[in-house]
Amino acid sequence: MDRITAAALTAHLERLITTERIERVRGVLENRTRYVCLVLEDIYKSQNASATLRTCDALGIQDVHIIENHSPFSLDSKVSLGSSQWTTLKRYRESGANNTQACYAALRAQGYRIIATAPGPGSLRLEDIALESKCAFVFGNEEQGLSAGAIDGADACVSLPMYGFTQSYNISVSVGIVLMHMIGCLRTSGVEWQLTDEQKDVLTLEWYRTMVRSDDIIEKQFLMSMNCFGTDV
Amino acid sequence: MDRITAAALTAHLERLITTERIERVRGVLENRTRYVCLVLEDIYKSQNASATLRTCDALGIQDVHIIENHSPFSLDSKVSLGSSQWTTLKRYRESGANNTQACYAALRAQGYRIIATAPGPGSLRLEDIALESKCAFVFGNEEQGLSAGAIDGADACVSLPMYGFTQSYNISVSVGIVLMHMIGCLRTSGVEWQLTDEQKDVLTLEWYRTMVRSDDIIEKQFLMSMNCFGTDV
Repeated sequence: MDRITAAALTAHLERLITTERIERVRGVLENRTRYVCLVLEDIYKSQNASATLRTCDALGIQDVHIIENHSPFSLDSKVSLGSSQWTTLKRYRESGANNTQACYAALRAQGYRIIATAPGPGSLRLEDIALESKCAFVFGNEEQGLSAGAIDGADACVSLPMYGFTQSYNISVSVGIVLMHMIGCLRTSGVEWQLTDEQKDVLTLEWYRTMVRSDDIIEKQFLMSMNCFGTDV
Repeated sequence: MDRITAAALTAHLERLITTERIERVRGVLENRTRYVCLVLEDIYKSQNASATLRTCDALGIQDVHIIENHSPFSLDSKVSLGSSQWTTLKRYRESGANNTQACYAALRAQGYRIIATAPGPGSLRLEDIALESKCAFVFGNEEQGLSAGAIDGADACVSLPMYGFTQSYNISVSVGIVLMHMIGCLRTSGVEWQLTDEQKDVLTLEWYRTMVRSDDIIEKQFLMSMNCFGTDV
């Protein structure tokens, strides 16, 4: 769909949405970022996957990259509370492929620095992570943590302080701590972390489509009225 | 058990524990605090309860107060990873009683300021929480949040920033974010947050007992040799 049609469709859908919800979309967009994103490698508990998506939406993080080498990703709607509708999920799940490598290559092509969360002598502290470039934070699976490939292929590692007998945090807890910290830093930094107008337009249309029930029918009617369809519609 | 017997028993048990584990206990004790504690009101998902205990142990928070007005507290050992062995759990679960009130009264008697995590116009930001006195952070149940009594009875409320459509974090995520922040502040403050020598002694014995398998038999043998038991043992 070209930009002009998309803008007209957005305006059309907007007429079907309450002023309150339109204001909400605008408010959320002002706080949305693609400067920091989340990567999950082989998370298999739907409870954890769902809690992390909810955290991303709540913190304004738009993009979640999901690597499925061994474990299929699934959500628990009672925990995610619809947050998968408002975040952009990109799944890497080709059978037999090195999906971690594919994900990292895609992130690098978009200018992300890749930071693996893994304890170790060379790991940085959270407060040492510089935000001079876009950052993707990678978290590993509930039992094995990150794969060797995910750690070796990253630009840096970060670990959280641990003072007790337990040598790890629950995955969704780690994600919350790391992302809350980074978003706090980002919002007080001089970095341009907000979405571009074009990105906002794309998300607005996407979210409006989610909001307007039976949008398929409404969209088809609209596009027909603009003669975008042939006679077979 | 009097202090002298306890010290002798500790020394006795210590002989059955590896140097590495003794060092670990000492290291953990140096990082343990009762200055900040956690209160959970009617958490019913074992996954969440377990993840929060693991967070407390990992952050060095010794005390977790568990209010059970409506929901019995249970743990998932695959998530808690033994952390309930290293933390002190105090349960408030009298049938028909106002267990929230009982918990708050007990905390106040110990000098805690009670901070409820609940959004609202009067809620403080995390960075506004002063640490001039001991603080108990109260978190509510997965669906209803905190009870009105828990909010009204608190000294202050705190809420986390939320920039998205989702209007709450998963409970174990919230606990992680709040406690990691407070422990970070505490450790860089001038406050005396560490345990007293007496508190350390008590915990050392408790943890040694956990570590030494079949400690019941070993303890009985020891106490008999000190003539602490009558002839019926």
